Amino acid sequence: MRVAALFFALACVSTAQAQDPLRPAALDTASQLRERALGDGTGYRIIESLTTEIGPRLPGSEADARAVAWAQAKFESLGFDRVWTEPVTFPKWERRSERAAVVGAHAQPLVVTALGGSPGGTVEAEIVRFADFAALDAAPAEAVAGKIVFVDFAMERTRDGSGYDAAGPVRGRGPSVAASKGAVGFLMRSLSTSRNRVANTGITRFAEGVTPIPAAATSLPDAEQLVRLLERGPVRVRMELDCGWNGEYTSYNVIGELTGREAPDEIVVLASHLDSWDHGTGAVDDASGVGITMAAGHLVAQLPQRPRRSLRVIAFANEEQGLLGARQYAQRHADTMAQHVVGAESDFGSGRIYAFNTSAKDGDHALSRQIAGALAPLGIEFLPDQGGPGPDIIPLAQAGMPWAWLGQDGSGYFDLHHNADDTFDKVDADDVKHNVAAYAVFVWLAAEADAEFRTTGDAE
Amino acid sequence: MRVAALFFALACVSTAQAQDPLRPAALDTASQLRERALGDGTGYRIIESLTTEIGPRLPGSEADARAVAWAQAKFESLGFDRVWTEPVTFPKWERRSERAAVVGAHAQPLVVTALGGSPGGTVEAEIVRFADFAALDAAPAEAVAGKIVFVDFAMERTRDGSGYDAAGPVRGRGPSVAASKGAVGFLMRSLSTSRNRVANTGITRFAEGVTPIPAAATSLPDAEQLVRLLERGPVRVRMELDCGWNGEYTSYNVIGELTGREAPDEIVVLASHLDSWDHGTGAVDDASGVGITMAAGHLVAQLPQRPRRSLRVIAFANEEQGLLGARQYAQRHADTMAQHVVGAESDFGSGRIYAFNTSAKDGDHALSRQIAGALAPLGIEFLPDQGGPGPDIIPLAQAGMPWAWLGQDGSGYFDLHHNADDTFDKVDADDVKHNVAAYAVFVWLAAEADAEFRTTGDAE
Repeated sequence: MRVAALFFALACVSTAQAQDPLRPAALDTASQLRERALGDGTGYRIIESLTTEIGPRLPGSEADARAVAWAQAKFESLGFDRVWTEPVTFPKWERRSERAAVVGAHAQPLVVTALGGSPGGTVEAEIVRFADFAALDAAPAEAVAGKIVFVDFAMERTRDGSGYDAAGPVRGRGPSVAASKGAVGFLMRSLSTSRNRVANTGITRFAEGVTPIPAAATSLPDAEQLVRLLERGPVRVRMELDCGWNGEYTSYNVIGELTGREAPDEIVVLASHLDSWDHGTGAVDDASGVGITMAAGHLVAQLPQRPRRSLRVIAFANEEQGLLGARQYAQRHADTMAQHVVGAESDFGSGRIYAFNTSAKDGDHALSRQIAGALAPLGIEFLPDQGGPGPDIIPLAQAGMPWAWLGQDGSGYFDLHHNADDTFDKVDADDVKHNVAAYAVFVWLAAEADAEFRTTGDAE
Repeated sequence: MRVAALFFALACVSTAQAQDPLRPAALDTASQLRERALGDGTGYRIIESLTTEIGPRLPGSEADARAVAWAQAKFESLGFDRVWTEPVTFPKWERRSERAAVVGAHAQPLVVTALGGSPGGTVEAEIVRFADFAALDAAPAEAVAGKIVFVDFAMERTRDGSGYDAAGPVRGRGPSVAASKGAVGFLMRSLSTSRNRVANTGITRFAEGVTPIPAAATSLPDAEQLVRLLERGPVRVRMELDCGWNGEYTSYNVIGELTGREAPDEIVVLASHLDSWDHGTGAVDDASGVGITMAAGHLVAQLPQRPRRSLRVIAFANEEQGLLGARQYAQRHADTMAQHVVGAESDFGSGRIYAFNTSAKDGDHALSRQIAGALAPLGIEFLPDQGGPGPDIIPLAQAGMPWAWLGQDGSGYFDLHHNADDTFDKVDADDVKHNVAAYAVFVWLAAEADAEFRTTGDAE
């Protein structure tokens, strides 16, 4: 497939050059950027710096403020033309302590973690197992009332993250549905592909009118232990969660901009998020994205001249609890959203990029095709029917900004996602270089072009 | 190597039969046992039962008593002729809570676990790093006084466990040496080969006259984080351990015996230990050994007749904190130790057995060689210069009992040893069958023989 894509790209350059929006000089520069990036350790060093010096960055925590100051200083040291912050206010959720145990004849501790958004509380009750969200959703209230709901959905390992998408409702809606049927607590098999004894957190939301219940996840070995115990008879579990919402906090989106030389008001967005969950140091989620996008911008900043358009590298605040930074950015910049040319986010770890696409809906979108051609030497395929906007790009795309997708191999991502194993040692330096190369090529060409990604089908 | 060993064994059977202590009928039975064991799931089911129904089995905990009752019932259900317990009294060490964090500009939590035998206490101090035990041992007191000693020794992955042996003094003696030089706390890189965010506990001992200090281990990613932070300047750590010695407890060695048909007072010992550390469910350490030895005994019990000698399968109490059960067994049975013909312990997980040896020191110990021949079809080599007694065999061997070594592949053992990842899902059913087959063959032949393992060089 790589050879085919490369041939396709070369064929386009030679035969379709007249109507192509990108000129050979821009493509030459893209090639140089790509090669430079593959030999440059800036992205990896940024990831090391953020995960080491700041560590976990739970939104609203003391480390949130340190991370903002870190990102400002980092952008400034990397040669961006303008660096600024924009406030993002959100409810603050705190984790203080959490534990759980099987009680009774087979008493033993369980590894659990509270889901973000869970209230605190101590509950002890029999567990009732459901194989997935649909089974819980279909259950009569009398099967659930007074019990701790245990959703035992086994997430599948996939390259593109579709296993997580399929599992999504378990964590996002499971606790609310369980509470609405009278459950006293909620416990889920972690959305994880790891057999390690770590539990995966993540946000959950309770519907209006539903009284929240303590909600937690347990590791895969613990979930399987519960299944084995259930084969022997009823199982009672005690969960003690000390956590919950506690006032408001104001954090900041941190933005580094390279000012475009001809069309400075036209903006290409490279996004990541600065916050993380609190068990690991957020190395793959999402210090990797921060490092990759900052380094890509840094490489473009080192070129002899700025691209035509402006490049905004944005480290968003509080992605994890509902894209808060991105939503507030979209609101604040609503009046210039039409000048946001395209945006992409790196928020899927540091696995290599294998695919590219944009939201442009033309049968043959020449600019997307040309960028794909410049990415092909990295083994990246143009997959015009796949992908979508990264999480923080969604609110901007909803406001009309076209998106680009640089699809990473996420096969190993959910071994680490939202759990304590997400630490710097899991990041591969060469994979990061590969990612930086792809983002540098993409952002340079998107910012250098004078063509649009908006096409007939786009909302305007 | 397997083919060579097999050839050697066959050659011995045909040419050296006259002086060989084991008769063809006994060897035929061994072959049958071996094949039966390879198709039998008893060992795996025992491991599942112990890890699921009892879970972690810290000596002196509530689960210790449940484990003793479980083991008695299990021996009885498996067809042993006599099942009994023998009391084992020891000081009880309790773990209540533990946490640690880097404080200051790079504040962040650390994953730690108290070492067994550590006192409780809260200490906050600068850390001082040593590459290994020797460096700490050689350090002047003024380099250590008032600080938290951080021993950053990276244990090597090895098949035979020699990496752990080499690292041993770090945990066993490191805290005492640090305390003797005036350190206020001790933190070590876990003796682990896993990159997961789990810390490995294990016993430590303070020398007489040394005031104990809080002592803990941290995960490999955390240890590497500390190294990165130290590159940036001094690092202060706060450790809060709530744990310590608390009175005495009486547990029990649990013994199942098959009574020998001709020489019932001659005893072959198959050992494992019933206790475990408290983070995992002690699946590889040592429910595997319990399952393997109980199942081997069970298979021998199903033969049409008992072996000549008696077989004692012993699930020892409190191996983890100093071989307490085995030591007290050796004392209690001192007067019959000369009738303990040979003993072997399964306490190295459930990896396949690749080697066999005994303490017999004859140039050509015919019985050992014949047993090795019967083990050869399992891919087990006779390695006359290697191995040694399993931990619980040591006190008995010191009292004069010969030992046998069924050397397991421990390449993956220290990914799980003494940490939370040591759970049932890590045990492979076929590997367990292989182990049971080897132990069944060994114990049958050792008990059926009328030759001795004691040889000229042995203490009598």
